[in-house]
Amino acid sequence: MAENISAQKLRQQIRSGQWAKQTSGTASGYVQANLVMLPLREAFNFLLFCSRNPKPCPILDVLEAGEVEPAIAKGADVRTDLPRYRIYHRGELSEEVEDVQPFFSDDVVTFLLGCSFSFENAMLAARLPIRNIEEQKNVSMYKTSRPCRSAGPFSAPLVVTMRPMTPEQAIRAVQVTTRFQLTHGAPIHMGDPTEIGITDLSQPDFGDPVEIRPGEIPVFWACGVTSSLAVVSAKLPLAITHAPGHMFVSDLKDEDMTVF
Amino acid sequence: MAENISAQKLRQQIRSGQWAKQTSGTASGYVQANLVMLPLREAFNFLLFCSRNPKPCPILDVLEAGEVEPAIAKGADVRTDLPRYRIYHRGELSEEVEDVQPFFSDDVVTFLLGCSFSFENAMLAARLPIRNIEEQKNVSMYKTSRPCRSAGPFSAPLVVTMRPMTPEQAIRAVQVTTRFQLTHGAPIHMGDPTEIGITDLSQPDFGDPVEIRPGEIPVFWACGVTSSLAVVSAKLPLAITHAPGHMFVSDLKDEDMTVF
Repeated sequence: MAENISAQKLRQQIRSGQWAKQTSGTASGYVQANLVMLPLREAFNFLLFCSRNPKPCPILDVLEAGEVEPAIAKGADVRTDLPRYRIYHRGELSEEVEDVQPFFSDDVVTFLLGCSFSFENAMLAARLPIRNIEEQKNVSMYKTSRPCRSAGPFSAPLVVTMRPMTPEQAIRAVQVTTRFQLTHGAPIHMGDPTEIGITDLSQPDFGDPVEIRPGEIPVFWACGVTSSLAVVSAKLPLAITHAPGHMFVSDLKDEDMTVF
Repeated sequence: MAENISAQKLRQQIRSGQWAKQTSGTASGYVQANLVMLPLREAFNFLLFCSRNPKPCPILDVLEAGEVEPAIAKGADVRTDLPRYRIYHRGELSEEVEDVQPFFSDDVVTFLLGCSFSFENAMLAARLPIRNIEEQKNVSMYKTSRPCRSAGPFSAPLVVTMRPMTPEQAIRAVQVTTRFQLTHGAPIHMGDPTEIGITDLSQPDFGDPVEIRPGEIPVFWACGVTSSLAVVSAKLPLAITHAPGHMFVSDLKDEDMTVF
């Protein structure tokens, strides 16, 4: 049922405690976002990191310090409207919570970054295979040997997601995802994984491995997990992210993420 | 001759005082940029303003506080490599200079923002008319009734450039400029100028008026001058911009500005 629920309705269910699960596949067609909260003092450097690495960290919205209602989700409250958050102190995960009000203050800046769900819907509509969905697994994610451009205390290797497909399907996937510039856009690599420092596709750094069939090549897209690694790398007194898969659901529709 | 000079060579000529003119039409094929310098204290809010208004203020590069060599121009020095700068104190233009070293410090952050020269080359290559070039004038620019999303002390109306063309040419121009996402991208309006608050096309707020021929419609693109208005609006103790037409010339090529 939750598939066809509106973003606003889903956020209300989350806020009232009726929905505590992952958001993947729910409120279909609405844009979901990675969340990062951190002290105002480092907000410039983190915005700089995102602006220097737009493929893994596409900025959907940045709130003023202390602000809780994003421009892209009227009536929402970023402190309560995600099903699960992670709290980090000095780069160490200290706990997971369903409400970050106790950690929030006028000194906290909230960032909402694009995620790949939007272009996955478009790939499915184009009849392209998404193996992890077929196998009911999490997408395979890998740290690459390509460093992001750092900014102040923020640095990270580029993290990628991988989807296996035939070369013909890969060509179509390049076309389809190119339109979704605000949710990672076109792939960053395809074919030989060692060229980007991945030695074993069956051992992803995050998520699950999936089958690569004969005649298929791995196709790699920049991944929002990059931003979480960058946040952790800075060892800030306080940082908050969404828990994996428990995203912020905005009022934007997938088609709003396209450049043409 | 300067048309086919390299960006690096042009920057050297500017630095050594051999070139003090406008940069338009020189170092053909290299991406030129709007420059903004301001105190670190307001850098986050200005980056936020740009990130909230990407069509008029596309970010090409942001330097760390005190840094002078952009990632997009090896060996360059942003304090000396533009032919002319404007110095503002508390929002008032105080002087124009050819070297900002006396005003620069470790507290100053430099922003380089995309400008429309890149997509103009692509339009010319597509045999689209650029009336102001034909008439050897500056492009017509207008303040619109559309406010930008503000950030901290930065606010401005959206400023647009206007190029007259036939509807058929306008369709082609939408296609051509859509590719140039980092230099303003597709038009924001075409046709009736009053819809965006422009009452008299023959009276541009900046630049020169151009002829609109029978059968032509005005086509409007977001303009980098928006960022200058935003900088002035904040009435900062110090702010530096390029002087109109005297841009920073980067090592990027026009084709690097395309999304596909």
